[in-house]
Amino acid sequence: MLSTIDHVGVAVQDIETALLLYRDALRMPQVHRETVSDQGVDAVLLDVGDAHVELLAPLGPDTAVGKFLARRGPGLHHVAYRVADIEETLRQLSAAGLRLIDEQPRIGIRGSRVAFLHPASTGGVLTEIVQPANGGDH
Amino acid sequence: MLSTIDHVGVAVQDIETALLLYRDALRMPQVHRETVSDQGVDAVLLDVGDAHVELLAPLGPDTAVGKFLARRGPGLHHVAYRVADIEETLRQLSAAGLRLIDEQPRIGIRGSRVAFLHPASTGGVLTEIVQPANGGDH
Repeated sequence: MLSTIDHVGVAVQDIETALLLYRDALRMPQVHRETVSDQGVDAVLLDVGDAHVELLAPLGPDTAVGKFLARRGPGLHHVAYRVADIEETLRQLSAAGLRLIDEQPRIGIRGSRVAFLHPASTGGVLTEIVQPANGGDH
Repeated sequence: MLSTIDHVGVAVQDIETALLLYRDALRMPQVHRETVSDQGVDAVLLDVGDAHVELLAPLGPDTAVGKFLARRGPGLHHVAYRVADIEETLRQLSAAGLRLIDEQPRIGIRGSRVAFLHPASTGGVLTEIVQPANGGDH
């Protein structure tokens, strides 16, 4: 059902400072940058093998990531698992009794289709599933 | 330097309850269980593709994970990146100015060799590097 860990999402106050760490010190290639207005974030993707780190800086204090930073400080925000068929996976997760934030997929970063599960049914872990734009093989 | 995301560590109050989610609902195969006294945890590894979820339940309230749960509640605890040569990676990370919790690798779960970086130099993200026992290819 879940192919692998696609990425971890990291909440940061400032993208440029975070790039000094992830791009320069940890040497992860920066592969994409996008403002995802729907999610209220400035986002950067870096490669680490076939997986990614997704840096998330809030567009304002009233966004989800802005509130996360105010409440918990910078750090791990979510984990995303890659799937080949997001509609089928959502049906399976719903049938397994999991509570979904997104009943239907929405468009995520880099043209992917994504959906979030509710942390109340995933042990406090904000959990995303993602079907990449190229069909799920990366 | 970092091959891929090896696993995410998830702090849980109770392993059996967490297995109802990860093993039964999310259908990740449980591949290992171990008490890691050194880290004060009962730990379970589940496969998700070539990566893993590591469930961590504290052996007591005074352990690192016990304190984490008391402070923040259950949720994402750390991210681990896989490396082929942990000594060489530690040298590179130290040269890049990162603060290390472990200057030398120690033995982690399933015979792996692991080291943690200090969250103060990784933007609040507890970050681990891991060289698996079989040489870094899994």
